[in-house]
Amino acid sequence: MTLTIGMITIDTTDPQRLADFWTKALGTSIQHDWGEFLVLAAVGGEGGPLLGLQRVDDPTPGKNRVHLDAHVEDRVGEVARLVGLGATEISEHTVPGLTWTVLADPDGNQFCVGQTS
Amino acid sequence: MTLTIGMITIDTTDPQRLADFWTKALGTSIQHDWGEFLVLAAVGGEGGPLLGLQRVDDPTPGKNRVHLDAHVEDRVGEVARLVGLGATEISEHTVPGLTWTVLADPDGNQFCVGQTS
Repeated sequence: MTLTIGMITIDTTDPQRLADFWTKALGTSIQHDWGEFLVLAAVGGEGGPLLGLQRVDDPTPGKNRVHLDAHVEDRVGEVARLVGLGATEISEHTVPGLTWTVLADPDGNQFCVGQTS
Repeated sequence: MTLTIGMITIDTTDPQRLADFWTKALGTSIQHDWGEFLVLAAVGGEGGPLLGLQRVDDPTPGKNRVHLDAHVEDRVGEVARLVGLGATEISEHTVPGLTWTVLADPDGNQFCVGQTS
């Protein structure tokens, strides 16, 4: 037996607000809406995992210990687009062959957008 | 432009220890090992995202605000297997059509294993 990751779920006090951001960021849509729990359609490419947004009273504060990483062809353009959608730019990092920007979604969940060079 | 999630990354003080657990849990392997940063091969099915394990000095304590969800055919058997690998069983929940177990990996990262009925 092995596990396959079918969904990544984010705790939030306001699933609808995060859904507004992440559906636009990922170019995806709400697949299920149970009010307290929203599921966004595949976010990791065809057949990839779903993104769950789960209402909780008290999301753990601080930097999220588990985060999402995306790879893009035009990092600068994509970061500008995400900031326009409500993300906050946190920092930029470069190692040989890769530059990435750390952003935060409207809840402060950090995620990375990287581009190879 | 849209983003596609290519990787999910977990902050940890000990990437190798988490890799030991997650490679067995997911039936996957270490694709890259840079010591401070390990990447496990696709964990969301063919073409699905990678799992990154990143060494940090101070992972945010408490429940991880972003978590992984898996769906299985034999939840009871799979939970027993995961506990044997070093996971801890936290709780069990049932809603009409779905039962899931919340577990924690050796770092305390909670994740869910669900089975439809």
